[in-house]
Amino acid sequence: MTMEYAIRAANVEDCKDIARMIVELAEYEKVADQVKITQRDLEQDGFSKNPFFHGIVAEVPEQHKTKEGHTKIGYALYFYSYSSWVGRAIYMEDLYVMPDFRGKGIGKALMSKVAQLGLAAGCNQLNFTVLDWNKSSLDFYLSQGCFDVTASKGYHLMRCEGEALQHLAQP
Amino acid sequence: MTMEYAIRAANVEDCKDIARMIVELAEYEKVADQVKITQRDLEQDGFSKNPFFHGIVAEVPEQHKTKEGHTKIGYALYFYSYSSWVGRAIYMEDLYVMPDFRGKGIGKALMSKVAQLGLAAGCNQLNFTVLDWNKSSLDFYLSQGCFDVTASKGYHLMRCEGEALQHLAQP
Repeated sequence: MTMEYAIRAANVEDCKDIARMIVELAEYEKVADQVKITQRDLEQDGFSKNPFFHGIVAEVPEQHKTKEGHTKIGYALYFYSYSSWVGRAIYMEDLYVMPDFRGKGIGKALMSKVAQLGLAAGCNQLNFTVLDWNKSSLDFYLSQGCFDVTASKGYHLMRCEGEALQHLAQP
Repeated sequence: MTMEYAIRAANVEDCKDIARMIVELAEYEKVADQVKITQRDLEQDGFSKNPFFHGIVAEVPEQHKTKEGHTKIGYALYFYSYSSWVGRAIYMEDLYVMPDFRGKGIGKALMSKVAQLGLAAGCNQLNFTVLDWNKSSLDFYLSQGCFDVTASKGYHLMRCEGEALQHLAQP
């Protein structure tokens, strides 16, 4: 079944729905307790001068709204990054479509838009992460010609945060 | 043995040395053939309006220059990024100190500076990658309180590039 939908750049009025969907995605990934972000954080960090991220949303017409009344049913966040080997790159932080709207090509359309934005900015790579147990997502990404940099080249993602980050910053 | 050195923000005149050290780092990582970046790319992408990255360099006094005459002996590249769980983050793309200058705390000082810059910008995380066979680097990062997100949480880095990226961008 096809469904009418639109992909467009997110604006500050979308932050409430994006915050809602961030929590839905984290629930799916079984880590909802780790979400500290708020609607207000998104408004400040994404829609002021020198934004830390950009976003796109997928929207359906009123007649297809959810039983809770939502018409914004998917999103992706991205930011520009850099590879010291190949130069400009784009990083997709999140890609999410609400469960009732999957299987209609909306996720593919969101990811395609991020790729378009990256190419338009001269980026040579699109990077993102996937959880190793999330086989359906991994299969989708592989089917789109993506490859697993961790499995094929041995790169591990590392992180410093909290007290360790404060300590590291001591001169 | 201690050695006098300075850590400072990179400027456009440093791009020649950064390009040289990017190749040195890639040689160490056994992937020098994958480096497509040039001095001119770095100048354009890092030092024009809306830069794709920022850099810091480690410099030693003239009397400690290398036999090739280099005084810029280490660097780190970084850019601001975003976590949909915790908000503002900083990503360290590269951290490198020339072999003859290791063991003097210069790598730690470069990484500490990136952490300071991140905290000053309100970042809650410092992220980076490490190659799984690079045990000395991994041990250093773990000793600084960093943790392996791939090993502990199962995140794999994924990538789309080249023809696959062009194809993905087709509507």
